[in-house]
Formats: sequence, structure tokens, C-alpha cells
Amino acid sequence: MSKFIKKRSQKTGLPPGSLVPLETNLSERVKLSMMEYSEDFFFEKEDANISECLNSLENPAMTWIQASGVNDPALISAIGTHFKIHGLVLEDIMSTGQRSKLDEYNNQIFIVSRMLFFDAQKELHDEQISLIFGPNYLISFLETDDPIFKSIRERIRQGNNRIRKSGGDYLAYALLDTVVDHYFNVLEVFDNELVSIEDQVTSQPKPNTLQKIQTIRTQVIHLRKAVWPMREVLNRFQYMESPLVQATTKLYLRDVYDHTVQTIDIIEGFRDIISGMLDLYMSNINMRLNEIVKVLTIVSTIFVPLTFLSSLYGMNFDYMPELQTEWGYPITIIVMLAIACGMLYFFRRRKWI
Amino acid sequence: MSKFIKKRSQKTGLPPGSLVPLETNLSERVKLSMMEYSEDFFFEKEDANISECLNSLENPAMTWIQASGVNDPALISAIGTHFKIHGLVLEDIMSTGQRSKLDEYNNQIFIVSRMLFFDAQKELHDEQISLIFGPNYLISFLETDDPIFKSIRERIRQGNNRIRKSGGDYLAYALLDTVVDHYFNVLEVFDNELVSIEDQVTSQPKPNTLQKIQTIRTQVIHLRKAVWPMREVLNRFQYMESPLVQATTKLYLRDVYDHTVQTIDIIEGFRDIISGMLDLYMSNINMRLNEIVKVLTIVSTIFVPLTFLSSLYGMNFDYMPELQTEWGYPITIIVMLAIACGMLYFFRRRKWI
Amino acid sequence: MSKFIKKRSQKTGLPPGSLVPLETNLSERVKLSMMEYSEDFFFEKEDANISECLNSLENPAMTWIQASGVNDPALISAIGTHFKIHGLVLEDIMSTGQRSKLDEYNNQIFIVSRMLFFDAQKELHDEQISLIFGPNYLISFLETDDPIFKSIRERIRQGNNRIRKSGGDYLAYALLDTVVDHYFNVLEVFDNELVSIEDQVTSQPKPNTLQKIQTIRTQVIHLRKAVWPMREVLNRFQYMESPLVQATTKLYLRDVYDHTVQTIDIIEGFRDIISGMLDLYMSNINMRLNEIVKVLTIVSTIFVPLTFLSSLYGMNFDYMPELQTEWGYPITIIVMLAIACGMLYFFRRRKWI
Amino acid sequence: MSKFIKKRSQKTGLPPGSLVPLETNLSERVKLSMMEYSEDFFFEKEDANISECLNSLENPAMTWIQASGVNDPALISAIGTHFKIHGLVLEDIMSTGQRSKLDEYNNQIFIVSRMLFFDAQKELHDEQISLIFGPNYLISFLETDDPIFKSIRERIRQGNNRIRKSGGDYLAYALLDTVVDHYFNVLEVFDNELVSIEDQVTSQPKPNTLQKIQTIRTQVIHLRKAVWPMREVLNRFQYMESPLVQATTKLYLRDVYDHTVQTIDIIEGFRDIISGMLDLYMSNINMRLNEIVKVLTIVSTIFVPLTFLSSLYGMNFDYMPELQTEWGYPITIIVMLAIACGMLYFFRRRKWI
Amino acid sequence: MSKFIKKRSQKTGLPPGSLVPLETNLSERVKLSMMEYSEDFFFEKEDANISECLNSLENPAMTWIQASGVNDPALISAIGTHFKIHGLVLEDIMSTGQRSKLDEYNNQIFIVSRMLFFDAQKELHDEQISLIFGPNYLISFLETDDPIFKSIRERIRQGNNRIRKSGGDYLAYALLDTVVDHYFNVLEVFDNELVSIEDQVTSQPKPNTLQKIQTIRTQVIHLRKAVWPMREVLNRFQYMESPLVQATTKLYLRDVYDHTVQTIDIIEGFRDIISGMLDLYMSNINMRLNEIVKVLTIVSTIFVPLTFLSSLYGMNFDYMPELQTEWGYPITIIVMLAIACGMLYFFRRRKWI
Repeated sequence: MSKFIKKRSQKTGLPPGSLVPLETNLSERVKLSMMEYSEDFFFEKEDANISECLNSLENPAMTWIQASGVNDPALISAIGTHFKIHGLVLEDIMSTGQRSKLDEYNNQIFIVSRMLFFDAQKELHDEQISLIFGPNYLISFLETDDPIFKSIRERIRQGNNRIRKSGGDYLAYALLDTVVDHYFNVLEVFDNELVSIEDQVTSQPKPNTLQKIQTIRTQVIHLRKAVWPMREVLNRFQYMESPLVQATTKLYLRDVYDHTVQTIDIIEGFRDIISGMLDLYMSNINMRLNEIVKVLTIVSTIFVPLTFLSSLYGMNFDYMPELQTEWGYPITIIVMLAIACGMLYFFRRRKWI
Repeated sequence: MSKFIKKRSQKTGLPPGSLVPLETNLSERVKLSMMEYSEDFFFEKEDANISECLNSLENPAMTWIQASGVNDPALISAIGTHFKIHGLVLEDIMSTGQRSKLDEYNNQIFIVSRMLFFDAQKELHDEQISLIFGPNYLISFLETDDPIFKSIRERIRQGNNRIRKSGGDYLAYALLDTVVDHYFNVLEVFDNELVSIEDQVTSQPKPNTLQKIQTIRTQVIHLRKAVWPMREVLNRFQYMESPLVQATTKLYLRDVYDHTVQTIDIIEGFRDIISGMLDLYMSNINMRLNEIVKVLTIVSTIFVPLTFLSSLYGMNFDYMPELQTEWGYPITIIVMLAIACGMLYFFRRRKWI
Repeated sequence: MSKFIKKRSQKTGLPPGSLVPLETNLSERVKLSMMEYSEDFFFEKEDANISECLNSLENPAMTWIQASGVNDPALISAIGTHFKIHGLVLEDIMSTGQRSKLDEYNNQIFIVSRMLFFDAQKELHDEQISLIFGPNYLISFLETDDPIFKSIRERIRQGNNRIRKSGGDYLAYALLDTVVDHYFNVLEVFDNELVSIEDQVTSQPKPNTLQKIQTIRTQVIHLRKAVWPMREVLNRFQYMESPLVQATTKLYLRDVYDHTVQTIDIIEGFRDIISGMLDLYMSNINMRLNEIVKVLTIVSTIFVPLTFLSSLYGMNFDYMPELQTEWGYPITIIVMLAIACGMLYFFRRRKWI
Repeated sequence: MSKFIKKRSQKTGLPPGSLVPLETNLSERVKLSMMEYSEDFFFEKEDANISECLNSLENPAMTWIQASGVNDPALISAIGTHFKIHGLVLEDIMSTGQRSKLDEYNNQIFIVSRMLFFDAQKELHDEQISLIFGPNYLISFLETDDPIFKSIRERIRQGNNRIRKSGGDYLAYALLDTVVDHYFNVLEVFDNELVSIEDQVTSQPKPNTLQKIQTIRTQVIHLRKAVWPMREVLNRFQYMESPLVQATTKLYLRDVYDHTVQTIDIIEGFRDIISGMLDLYMSNINMRLNEIVKVLTIVSTIFVPLTFLSSLYGMNFDYMPELQTEWGYPITIIVMLAIACGMLYFFRRRKWI
Repeated sequence: MSKFIKKRSQKTGLPPGSLVPLETNLSERVKLSMMEYSEDFFFEKEDANISECLNSLENPAMTWIQASGVNDPALISAIGTHFKIHGLVLEDIMSTGQRSKLDEYNNQIFIVSRMLFFDAQKELHDEQISLIFGPNYLISFLETDDPIFKSIRERIRQGNNRIRKSGGDYLAYALLDTVVDHYFNVLEVFDNELVSIEDQVTSQPKPNTLQKIQTIRTQVIHLRKAVWPMREVLNRFQYMESPLVQATTKLYLRDVYDHTVQTIDIIEGFRDIISGMLDLYMSNINMRLNEIVKVLTIVSTIFVPLTFLSSLYGMNFDYMPELQTEWGYPITIIVMLAIACGMLYFFRRRKWI
């Protein structure tokens, strides 16, 4: 399995608009859910089938269809035909490694964005969310079961809020806002991780500390790669001249745009912090090496000369006058002590001990 | 508690404009203070209540309301309703991790800026200041008790100056000018710190020197993150086509803009200096390691061969003719001296000693 | 043979438009293949000769001529004369080290792009593809036998698709799309390689690991150098105001442009990953050095003092009272054990063992 | 005293336009000098007093007033009133840490630039030069006694040149040209320094070599900080639509602009050279460590086994048959020589010796 | 002599347009050569004198005057007067450290470019070429005897080509094209050098390898500094709205512009390759240190304990029961072997041997 990118080699050479699911679990069934609402009307059907969804569109009320899963070419194709969606859009929806982008078609706006979130196993997921909306409908395509839009559904159910009074553009805003809010959640997880890594780096670097730093560095870069194009998307969205985007919605888009810029600021800050940690880590490793070598040097430089001296008087020459003198031994001991003290003084002066 | 960012995860999924205080001390009371002035009129009320503040606005004179604290949704909401402030603005005021920005509304300008200052405990604080002003009023929201605007109040009290003769735009300028002036104060503290760190790095690097460098590096990056968007804000402010900004004020805005650019220049200079210090520090560590290893090498390479020689003649073979000769011992000593001198000469030639 | 660039020094000083083949195998014959098609007409001739190709152009149907090989100045020149191609274009076609570019001439568009692919020997090839097209013809020049356009030919043969219904612009799109799809294939090979290198770096860095990292780094940079100008080309292509480019084709060009941007994103991600691996590798090398030095230090610092002690009592002085005492030996042994234990305790406290 | 920035904290909270001298020697008297000239008229007064200067302005001839020193608020204020200079300009003149800039006022142009020069003690000075000029006058403010404009004065005195025939704009050009020429002088001093450092790095790095590199690096960055904004100033100056700037002068401004760009080019080149030196220095340090460790390793690995051997036969066991054999000693010696030679061969094969 | 920049300090303070030769060999005579040509006319004079050159200009045919050497102010000045060249242009021609640039005057275009080439001694030269041309003349100024324009002369002599049919703009193109072609030649020399350095780095780094890397790095940066402004020049040249530049010439200018961009691409590639080599070199140095330390550690850790053991039984205590036992010696030997084997096993498990 590929680790850093989503494989798409099986698509090489196919004509554009070919709907080929990527290397994912094809057995998984695509779940459709549907909501119809206006200020004073509300109808909901979870786990709807495709014809229910499409029929409901006769209704002038706002319709939100959400597909959880994009591995069923037939279903995607059916929706595409019904809403007159361009083949390239359908292909983008199924090739879930797209960069965030916003494309304008005749009377539809197509938005791709990346949703990042930590699952229960503390693993970072990166899924593609594709939105396509017109005046009174929005279709959202998710890669898996909806992990983050529950609160939006709840707000629509409760009614009496701006979503119920607005069209596809505001619902698109609400969904994107939720996506950006999740960026903040991810950043908070990073934040906690960074605090814990910093402790490790400063106090007791372990062999796996560096790997932890690298992991979070890669994740931060990953998030960054998701957020930067999102910023472009929101910038284009908020300044778009299209009958599909209400002026009142644009104020809200500016707000979520500001949040995205804030996210980028924090990410860049994290990158600086991580690079600082790397320096600190490397320098700590070096300090420890110094420490170790210092101990070795001190012990060796003290005892090596002493050992020489004592082995000198261990020689077996017949004529070694010192050996016979009565004071030979004590004087040798004293000389040795003097050498040791001299060495210690030398080290102290160099501030090694 | 989070260290690097302000948590806002509790807001995920809430509708826009939701007024939720961030994780700060909610018990703290929000203090309101109010000033009304024109060229020849002055009225002041510290610790006013909300209705006093709002009533006073009937007065055609300029009104400055300052809220110290943003944790009271009811109060923020009351002010918002009275001044017809957009819900997203109110949300931004309460979410105190905003990036500096300037948004124009119907007949109001909303400015967020970051105020950085060192408190008495020499800790760097980063607070959000939100200003919203119209032709004859300005409302400023601070996170805590006002630490830096005392001099502005004093100037208003004394009268006979440009603030008393001008409207909301000039007061906004005066406040932003004070904020930027405080950036310089922070930079001066950094400057002193850098001088002291540089001394340490050059003379006697300690284990915590690097950490000090990293700390100031992080703080400089933090300041930089505050100043860059401030520059954009002031740039837009000074070139704004709005009836709310007088032409005469724009000259002053250009001045504070220049100061901000100057701040950025100094910050970039600091970054260069810090990165130079890091290099110097790392290289000093390496030099010390060289020094230590050199001592070890010199002592070992002199004494190891000597020790070998003397242990050689400490062997107990029955037939070792050298041992019986009369000159064995002195010749051995001379050979040893010769070896030692040769080694020393070798080291001197390599410029190790 | 040159390694990093294609030599072109033999061209220095020649007039512009001189057709000189670069240092490649001149004996290789240039192979021409030709296709004529419209929605309901199809004719194909592999290995055609030059006059066949040129005659067929009388036909109003779309004609695609492909030259595999660019080393025959006479042939290139003949084609150039027949299609009224500018001399500088012909020179560019033969100088196969061009940067991707798009030039517009009277009623022709000339596109150079770089095709990257791994051959059977897992070696990365970088060849130039030159396209020149008018309303109803396209001529493509490849450096070698066509390695990647087989699927396009097949689609044309099968008929009933957009290529058969469109002109030169759409065929140009289809070819460029294939080229960009191959970038993804190359990236997938890189991806696998990176996964394997990462394993090596983390578990057991070998001497050639770094070289592997450097090789893939160079290859990624190479790909990057090919893709960035491609992005410009596709951007200009899609926004071009020319009767030669149909509006319907532009949507498809946007799609392949998006793919190129995605490629760039992945490449930049790879660069980050590679630079992280380099850091990890370097740090692992350092860690191992630390490890080795630690073992040396521990063994030396324990045994050097002990050896001193024992050689002390190996001295041959006549008067060494300790030697005669009955408990001298056991006490010495005990002292030695104490020293060893003390050292071990010291190391444990420093967390070295 | 601050080292890296000019303190301005005493200005925090003061109203804009407050004339407060920075922390410099206040006792120093400000010296005024004055020149009046036209094509055929010339009058000069060194050390003039303020009223002389101002009276002379009735004269239609060109007047150049130069103030050496900016610490006298009264004097600055008097000049300001007479020439109707904006308060913010006066403040900028006295706050001598400004960034180079060009501001246009009603019928005056205000230019700040940074003058860098080495004094007799080889210390780098960075002073602010403020110019304010109208159609027939120019006032220049220097921080100290004029160190660089002597040649301009001389040219004016000699007459018969373009300065005598032109107005304030050309004189401003001439002054700025001199400032930029001094950048080249500073660069030549850097150049000499770099040559000498390069010698040191390559042949015999000393402990202070790195500090020298850091010093020049900081100075180069300092110069860079001065030159970049200067480039903007000259760019705006040369493209300015103002009656104050003659078309003929603009050609000359383009020339000095080109020089500034050339300066920037050289500075960027120096940065590359310095960073290359740092790498070289670091690598040399590492090479030396390798060298030292190699000597240690060779000596130790040869003698440690030999010493073991000889101490082996220094053991006092009663039953050691080798000791009694006649050939024990010579065989041991031969074994030792064999070991030593084997080691040497091993080192030679590894290319250590 | 200065190494990194061309000194121009003697010009400080001189009025603009002062013609002062730079520090070069003033004795060298300036050689003039002259060519007159039209489609069917050709006249040439090598080593012409100044009046011959100027007189010939009455002729309506195209005239190309080339000055080899720029150290003769009188000559430069004479040409300048005759062709009405601006004083600043003449100054630029003589100050041969200019950045490539293009300036437009009344009916002249002035172009400065940098010519880089390796001389016979394999030294890189960087000379300034100044071109000034009008409708039917071009004057080129070189620093030394023409090293690269021989092929152009030859083409003009042979006739029957585009140069003979065109005016000053096309000749200027032809000269610049030759200059850019020489950049490729320089790059090929670099390429060969890089291949040889890479071999050294991978197989056997020598002490001077790093210096070689630094040298080529500096040279690449030098070339880069020459090429980037050249790109701007050619860009402006090709999009220039001037009667002096024919539309047909612009196509050729686009071609040489593309070559320049290609050069930049290769240069940036070289920078990446060089930086990769630096990393590889540094890491190889580190690997070798590891290798050396490993050998030291293995030998020491095996023999130090053994030496201790043997010196233990070399002690002269009267009561050491082991010494008298018959099996003392063989058992000791066996223990020693066991220790040595244990150590070797430990090292093998750590994969050190």
C-alpha cells in the first residue's frame, strides 16, 4: 500500500471523465441521506435510495443530499445525469486525492475541500469533501460515514436559524466553516503533542524523540498542504460575482476566510517551533557526547600517567637503584598524588569539573 | 492548559456569531469606562455601568467607551445591539486569538490588533485589542485591565490637542500608535536580552544558553506574527476611501505605518542575529569537544607507548639479557624520554599544543 | 558523456535556426507513423514515408503525424517547409533539452513538454515531446520510439469518442494529459522508494542509504524542473484567446492543469519528506557515535583505575609494607570491587547504562 | 547602552510630532552651514546662525542649509516653522533610527537615507541623513559633523557644473549619489576583510575566526538593511510625477538607482560567500577532530594489545612454562612486531596513514 | 587586489559622467575594428583609427564598430560626442562592473551584458560587453581582445544571411545570442567538474574536495548573478515598443530569452546538486569518524579488561593463593579468552563488526 500519496496509476491513459474508484474498499456500500427544508418546512430521510433523493428535487424547498462514500460509479453517474454535472466533476469526486478547488459551471458551483480529523485511535485522517450546489440544492460527497457534520444537521432540524432561511450558498458556507473549525481541533491536538515533545527534548531525549518530532512535522506539513489551497478557495468564493452567492453570505465567507488565515499563521508558528526543537534536540545530543567524552578524558588523563609510573617500577632490571632505597615507595606515592592533583587543577581551571 | 495557541475547540459546530467566552477566568468582572469630549467639553466616568455608557451617546460630542474584559456575553451583546454591530464582529471580539485585521461595515470600521508587553514579572503578554468606531464614537475592548492607554487618557483630559479636536478615526490612530510604540518597548527588552546572551555564547556557553536562545527566538517569532498583519491593517487604513477616515488623519497613519515597517526591519535583523548566535553556539560546543579530545589524545599517545615499554621489562622471562646489563635501566629511561619528546614535537608541529 | 545537462556547445556561434542533431545516436532511423480520422473515417499507416504523410494532408479529416526520433535534419526540414513552420521551431524540436513552453505562431501552436517515465530497467528517462498543431493536423516529435501514447492510438482506432469528433487542440490536450498522467506514475515509483528508504533510515542505516536519499532527491528535483514550466504552459493554453483552441477543450485543459498543480503539491511534499529523512539519518549517525563512545568510556573508566591499582602493587620496591601483610591481597580486591561498583553507580545515575 | 537598536522607549505615549532627542550626547552643539548659489552667483557661510540661514532665503538663488546634529529641538522647530514643515517630518528628523523613505508633501519632498561609512578607527557608522527640498532650497540634517559631502561642496564652489545650474532635485540627487558611492567604499572594506578571513579559514582556523565571520555577516546584513529601502526610495524618486523633479534629473536618478541595484547584487553575493565560509570553517573543524581521533586510535590500537601481551608475561604464577623456555622472550618480541605490523597494514589499507 | 568585486572607490565624489578607467592595465592600447555592410556591400577594416570609423558613418549601409578595451577616456569621449551618447552611458561603458541592463535613449538603445568564458588556463573570466545601437549602426565595447564574436564576423563576411539584410537590432540580437551560447559552454565545463567532484565525494573525499565544491559553488553563483539580469534585459528587449526593434527580430529575441531561462533552470539545478554534494561530503566525514572511533572502541574494550587481569596477577603480594596453584595460569588464559569472545559477541550483536 502506498504511504505518501493516493495511487491513481490505473487511470493512466483512460479518457477524461472515466469513473474509476481508487484503491479503496469497494464492498462498502454508499449511504445516501437527504434533507429538504425551508424556513417552515422540514423533511428528512436517512439512508435514502437514489430515486427518493432525486424525486424530492421537484420541491421548491432547499434539498441537501449527502453521499457517504464515493465508490459506486453507477450512483455517482446517476446523480450526475440528473443534475447535469460535467463528467470531469464526477471524475474529481471519485478521485479522492484532489487539491481543494472551486470551479464554476453554468449554474452550479463545485467545491473540493480536504477534511482533517483525528479518529478515536488518535490517527490523523484526511478525507475529501466535494460539494456541488445550485440555487436550491447542495450535494455533498464524503469518503466515509459523516464524521463532522452532525451539528449542522442538528441545527437544521431545530430550525429558526439562518440555514433554514438561506439557499445552497449558505449551506456550503456552513459546511466549509465546520471543516475549518476541525482544522483548529487538529491544531489543538498538535499543540498538546508539541508540549509533551518539548518536555522530552529539554529533559531527557530518548531515541524515539526525533521520530516523534518528524511525525508531527510531517503531519503539520500535511495540514498546511490542505489549508493553503482552502484559503484560495475561500478567497475566490467570497469575491465571486455569481448569482449563486448572496451578498449576505459573503460576510460569513470573509469570516471563515479569516479563520483559515489564522490557521495558516498557527501552522507557520508550529513549523518554527518544530524547527527550534530539532535544533535543541541535536544540540542536546552533542552536549551529551561532550559530557561522555569529558568523563573519559578526565579518568584517562589522570590514571594513564600514574599507571605508567607504577609499571616503570615494576620493571625487572637488576640495577634499579630507586627500588632499594627506603623512601622509594612513599616518594613514588607522593609523586603520583601530585600528578593527580595537578591534573585535577588543570581540569578545574578549564571548567571541566 | 494549551501553550502555543488559544483553544477554541468548544466552538466547533456552533452557528456563526455564537458568543462563547474562551477558556479564561470567567469570574472576572468586565469593567467599563467612558469618556465624552469635544474641543471644549469633557466628561469622564470610570467604572460606569452599561446604561450610562449607552445613554451618553445621544450627546453629539465624541464618546470613547472602553471595556476591560471580554468575558461577559450579555454585556457584549447589549453593546452590539445598541451600536448595530454585526454578530460576526461580536464573536471576533470575544474570541481573543484573532489576527490583526480591519473590516469595513456600513458606517463603522472594526479593527483588531495585538498588544504585546512585558508585565512586572518580565513575562511577555499578548492581548487582543478590538476597536470599533463610527464618526463620533469609539469602543475599545481589552482582555484585561488597561495596561497601556493611560497616557492617551491623560492627553484627552488635559485637552488642547488634536485628539480633542478630532473624531473616531484620530482616536483609533492614537490607540494603534500606542500599540506600535509598545512593540518598540518589547524590542528593547529583547535587545538587552540578546546582548546578555551574546556575552554568554562568546565567553562561556552554559547548558541553558541554548534554551535562552530558543526562548527569545520564539518570542521574536511571536512578535513578528503580531506585527506583519498589523502592517497590512495600517496600510489598508491609510489608503481607505471612507468618509470615516479624514485626509488629515491619513498622514498620521502613514507615520505609524512607517513605524511598523521599522519594527519589522528590526525583527528581521533580530532573527538574523539569533541565527548567527545559534551557529556560534554550536561551533563553540564543537570547539570544546575538539579541545577535550585533544587533551585525551596527547596524554594517551605519550604514555601508552611508555607504559608498553615499561611493562615489557616487567615480564618474568628467565632469559631477558637486557635486564642483567648495568645500563639497561638508564637506557630505557632515555629511550622513554626520547619517545615523549618526539611525540611532543609531533604535536607542536601539528599546532595541537 | 555529460551527466547533468544535454551538451549543445557544438551549436555556439551558428546562425539561429541551424538544424544540428545533439550528441545522440545518429544512425537510428526516424520512424514516421500517420493517422487520419474524423468522426466516421479512419485511416492509419505505421512506418510511413515522408511523402505519404504530407500527401494525406489534402484530406479535410484530422491528421496526426508522429515522428519517433529527431535526428534527421532533412526530414524535419521537409516537414517544416510543407507546414510553413518557423526555423526557430524546427531548431527547438531538434535541440531536445528545451524547457516546456508554448509559442503561438500565425495559425499554429507549438508546445514543448517533457515526458518522464521509468523504463524496464527502472531507470528514469526524460524525453522531449514537441507538438505543433493547426486546425486539422497535429505533428508530434518524440526522441525515441513512442513509449506512452499507445492508449491514445487505441482510443482513436476504436472511435466513438471525443477525440474522433475534435480537432488538433483536443488531440494536443489528450497527449499532454497522458504526459501528466505519467508524472503520477513516476511519483508512485518515488513513493515506493521513499517507503523503503524510510525503513532503512529508521532501523538500520547503511553506508549507501544516504546515496539513495540523494539519488531520489535529485530525481524529485528533476521532475520538479519538468513540471513547473508545464504548469505555465497549461495555464497559458487554457486561457488562450485563439481560434485554434475550442471553448469546450478549455474545460479539459483546466482539468489537466489541476492535475499538474496536484503533482507539484506532491513533489513539494516529497521534498519535505526527503529533507526530514536526511535529518533523521544524520541524527541516527550521531546517536550511534554517542552509543559507541559511551561503551568505550564505560569500559575504560572502570578498568583504567583498577589497572593502575594492580600495577601499583606490581612495583618492585624493596620496602612496600602492604605486600607483606596477610590481608593486602583480599583488601585490594575489595577496594577494586568498590571502585567498579562506584563507577557503575555513577553511570547508572547519568542514565548511561 | 543598547547594541542592536536605537532606543526610543522614552517616546512611548507622547503625542505625534513630539520633538524628543534620542539618547545621544545632548551637549553637542548643532552646527549650521549655508550656501547660496546660482549659475553665476555664489555665497557661503560656515557655522552660520539660524537667522542668517533663514533670511537668506528671500534670495531667488538656490540655498543649501546643512545642520550637523539633530539634538536641538528649538532649532529644528524654528526651521520647521519657517519652511512650513509638517510636525511628523520634524519628529522623523530627530528620531535618527528611521528607515530610508521618501514622502511627498505639498511642495516639498522629504527623503530619509542611511549613510554608512568606516571611521578612522575602522568602525562602521550608520547615520541618518534627512533631506527636505523645495524648488530653490534644500535642507540636509546630519547626525554628526559632515563626513562625506566635502566633494559636493567643492564642486559647488568651483562652479561651472550641473549642480550650479540646477535646483533642489539635482542637489538631492548629488547627495544621494554620494551616499550610494559610500556604500561601495564600505563594500570594498568588506571585500578586503573577506579575503583575509578566507585565508584564515582555509589555512589555519583560529578560535576567533568564527567571530570574525559573524561580525562581517552582521555588518553585511546591516548594510543590506540600509540599501534595500534606499532602492525603493530611488525607484519612487525616478518615477515621481512632481513639478519638483525635472525630467533631466530623472536620468541621473536612474543611474544612481542602477548603482543601488548593483550594491544589492554585491551584498547578496557576499552573503553567499560568507555562508560558504561558514560551511568551510565547520567542515575544517570536523576534519581536525577526525585527524586528532585518528592519531589517538592508531597509537592506542597498536600499543594496547602489546601492553596486554607484556603484562601477561609479567604475571607471577608459579607455573608458567613459557617463562622458562630460552626462546620465550625473542618469540614474544617477534609476535609483538607482527601484531604492530599487522595493525599498520590495516591502517594503511583504510588509508588512515 | 580585490577579489570579489571591482573597485570603484576612486570615483566616490566625482560628478556623474566622469570618465575614469578602473584599476586595469592602462598601458593596453584600445583596438578599433570596423565593418560596413548591406545585403550586397561589404567593407572591413581591422585595427582602424578613430577618424576612419567615424567618417564611414556617412554611408547609409549598416556600420559595426567594435572597441576592444575601454581604458582610453579620450577615445570613448570622441565616439560619445560623434554619436551624441549620454555622458552616463559613457561612464557605464568604462566602469566595467555594471549589471546587465537595457536603457532606451532618444534614438539609441544601450545594452550592457556580462560575457563569461573559460580561457585557455581554465580560468573563468567575466567581462562586460556594452552595445549601443541606432537604426544603421552598432558600437560594441569589450574589455579585452574579442574572444567570442569571431563566428559572427565570419557570417557577415560570407554574406547571404539575415544579418546582412538587417539593421542594428538584429546584429545586437546576434551578439547577445552568442553571449548566451557561451553561458551554455561555461555550464558544460561546470558539468564536467561536477561529475569529477561527485566521484571524489562518493569514493574518497580528500581535504581539498570541499574547497573544490566551494569554488564551483562560487562560480555557479557568479554565473547566476550574470544571467538573471540578462533575462530581464531580453524580456524588456523582446516586448519593447520602439521603432529601433523590428517585429521580425522579436521572434529571435524570444528564442534567446528562452535559452536564458533554460540557463537559469540548469543553474538552479546545479545549486541543488552542489548542496546535495555538500551534505554527502559532510555525512561521509561523519561516517569516517564513526568508523575510526569504532575501531578504537573495539580494540580498547577487548584489551583493557584483559590487561587489568594480567596486571592483577603481576602484583607482588606475598599471600596470593592463586599464584601457587598449578592451574592458575591456564585458567586465567581461559577466562581471558572468554572475556574476549564475550566482547566480540557483544559487538557483533550491535552490528559493529
